[in-house]
Amino acid sequence: MEPVKIGLLGLGTVGCGTATVLERNASEIGRRAGRGIQIAAASARDIERPRACDTSGMRLTTEPTEVVDDPEVQVVVELMGGEGLAREMVLRAIEAGKHVVTANKAMIAKHGNEIFAAAQARGVMVAFEAAVAGGIPIIKAIREGLAGNRIEWLAGIINGTGNFILTEMRDKGRDFADVLGEAQRLGYAEADPTFDVEGIDAAHKLTILAAISFGIPLRFDDVHCEGIGHIAREDVAYADELGYRIKNIGFARQNEDGVELRVHPTLIPEKRLIANVDGVMNAVLVRGDAVGPTLYYGPGAGAEPTASAVVADLVDVVRALTSDPENRVPHLAFQPDAIVERPILPIDAVETAYYLRLQAVDRPGVLAEITRILGEEGISIEAMMQKEPPGSAPDSATVIMLTQRVVERSMNRAIERIEALDTVAGNVTRIRMETLG
Amino acid sequence: MEPVKIGLLGLGTVGCGTATVLERNASEIGRRAGRGIQIAAASARDIERPRACDTSGMRLTTEPTEVVDDPEVQVVVELMGGEGLAREMVLRAIEAGKHVVTANKAMIAKHGNEIFAAAQARGVMVAFEAAVAGGIPIIKAIREGLAGNRIEWLAGIINGTGNFILTEMRDKGRDFADVLGEAQRLGYAEADPTFDVEGIDAAHKLTILAAISFGIPLRFDDVHCEGIGHIAREDVAYADELGYRIKNIGFARQNEDGVELRVHPTLIPEKRLIANVDGVMNAVLVRGDAVGPTLYYGPGAGAEPTASAVVADLVDVVRALTSDPENRVPHLAFQPDAIVERPILPIDAVETAYYLRLQAVDRPGVLAEITRILGEEGISIEAMMQKEPPGSAPDSATVIMLTQRVVERSMNRAIERIEALDTVAGNVTRIRMETLG
Repeated sequence: MEPVKIGLLGLGTVGCGTATVLERNASEIGRRAGRGIQIAAASARDIERPRACDTSGMRLTTEPTEVVDDPEVQVVVELMGGEGLAREMVLRAIEAGKHVVTANKAMIAKHGNEIFAAAQARGVMVAFEAAVAGGIPIIKAIREGLAGNRIEWLAGIINGTGNFILTEMRDKGRDFADVLGEAQRLGYAEADPTFDVEGIDAAHKLTILAAISFGIPLRFDDVHCEGIGHIAREDVAYADELGYRIKNIGFARQNEDGVELRVHPTLIPEKRLIANVDGVMNAVLVRGDAVGPTLYYGPGAGAEPTASAVVADLVDVVRALTSDPENRVPHLAFQPDAIVERPILPIDAVETAYYLRLQAVDRPGVLAEITRILGEEGISIEAMMQKEPPGSAPDSATVIMLTQRVVERSMNRAIERIEALDTVAGNVTRIRMETLG
Repeated sequence: MEPVKIGLLGLGTVGCGTATVLERNASEIGRRAGRGIQIAAASARDIERPRACDTSGMRLTTEPTEVVDDPEVQVVVELMGGEGLAREMVLRAIEAGKHVVTANKAMIAKHGNEIFAAAQARGVMVAFEAAVAGGIPIIKAIREGLAGNRIEWLAGIINGTGNFILTEMRDKGRDFADVLGEAQRLGYAEADPTFDVEGIDAAHKLTILAAISFGIPLRFDDVHCEGIGHIAREDVAYADELGYRIKNIGFARQNEDGVELRVHPTLIPEKRLIANVDGVMNAVLVRGDAVGPTLYYGPGAGAEPTASAVVADLVDVVRALTSDPENRVPHLAFQPDAIVERPILPIDAVETAYYLRLQAVDRPGVLAEITRILGEEGISIEAMMQKEPPGSAPDSATVIMLTQRVVERSMNRAIERIEALDTVAGNVTRIRMETLG
């Protein structure tokens, strides 16, 4: 059978990785897909630049529309990134009745509802395994592998840069800024690290995971998103002492009241497997009502890991090329008419446990005042320890507490009252905590 | 649309779990599959017995053929276990043009080649996600999610009973026989624990994983299989001291010479995530050439975890019910005409590192003799420690060594020579070691 002809938008890291994998593993891929996959055309901003991959068999152009419109191209692989032009090209491909494979998490998270509606109307596939957690087949696992479950919650380490920084802070007792600088030198972090360290990249991915887990539309704007920049190395050390790791977690949960969507630094028990996912690696822990906890781990970025997901999608698409749309897996796991809006809980209605750190005057009665306020707000204390950090005032002590689960607005009130005490200096540091059990 | 009617062979733990999950999650499953899934008929040895699930909507019979032949039944779900009758019923269903979902690892490992050939000829699907690692969607992950890769190797903790025993031995310093007895009382281990502790159950699963990873036929008889019964608690403790865990690993690797298929206790570095998979949990670590290492973790057995996999297969089958067979994923991941025989390496041609423990006379020159023999057989020592276990003869010492990788036949020769030394008492204990890096 003739190979399927595909068109590549973008010949950067992932684009070249995809070309390399398709070529190196052509035989294995053909043995699985039943036919070959050939890159007929590719677009790049600068087609003269030397590339890390062999482009000799491709028609190269600087015009992405030429790839999309190429009559020979049956599947468009969008690896250019960004939201504006990428969205345009994907919609153009769909309009032309071409299938799409993309690694573009920002585009899917923000424009996915529009894109999937267009694809549905036109009867084409849009596959996006590479958009979340690189080479880990997490989209497929949730969408198909756990299809018998009501997904209760999921928790993901889905930003490698953030995880690298937190791992280094813990392993080497270093400060956030110090590690970030190194990550930038190593090329793990961008010159502008906002997307990674502010949790925006993780929020894109969480948006997608939540949609396919719960059968809700993509709701990126409703993700509560906090960065890791305020995590101090002493918090990492104290958490450690208490048997916890601080990880930047994307967390989604559904219950009767609605859906929680949040990205923030989180204390998790060190005995959990996911607490031991270190460096730039990614992992997603998914809890289904039938299966219980399952975890998926692997490289969340990089040329070939991401290409692995792109090619897996290509094999799926190639196999289903002549299939009836109704025999295909729905884009967002649930049938389009079965995707239902659910309320997204505001962060102050969310219930979690907390790690608290504060600086208090070291004299009798001070702790009693603090615990009285917590008690009045319905907050139980799970563990407490007192430290006298070197260099602090002689009559001052650092108090660290772990609380039981409480609604965030109660915690906000308690913290406001504690910060107003004469005997407490500065702000209360608060980090959310999940047992993930 | 009318619900799809299925027939259940077997109403034991997994059969009832499947009925329960299908009923409880009917709405979510329907939202994904696009139509309902209804158990029309079920067979069990004793249909009068009270069940853990609601069977009121099913036609019950003691005759599995009646379920298979039931004209209303479109998909046969084989959950009766065993090889003889199960195989007959599955072949009968295929012959009748019905699709099959099964959780039967022994049947697939031993009769899968025959079953898939029949299914291929008849154009029906036979899905078996539940046959390996319970609720973990590992079949789907390898078969589809990693389709862009050449799979280099995989290592699995795929027998929960064995992992429970080794975990208890380590955590509580207990002996094998002692823990096995408890596991039997707790219902984790069968009255006849042979399948679990001899590695046969793991070998069934490894057979399946290797076939879909490498594109080879199912070759159960060629799996080298060792049990965990000879692991002493001191080996678990010494391994720990050296930074390793002993796990019962199913390991498959392909290289230029052929394929390795082996199940045996294995030392793995404690820093690997898979080394920290404890109790009855399962995990499979898969290394693809593009993606690198990926790990899949979850419950490997139990009513609802296994049902989760059965129902996921059902959703896949239901969705593809009216599809053309050529648009479907091949049973064993590779197109039937692309499955190729490869030589399976005999165990003495396999290369691994080793943990060795021996009892030697504690006097100058003895170690030199042992290391000279190892050197002559081309075996390098990675680490060594000497212990004087309480109760041993005063002039006797326990020597523990970790070696670098060597072909097993060289190690066999070295051990034979070491055991022949006057200064060495008894046998050399040897446990294979893999870095899984």
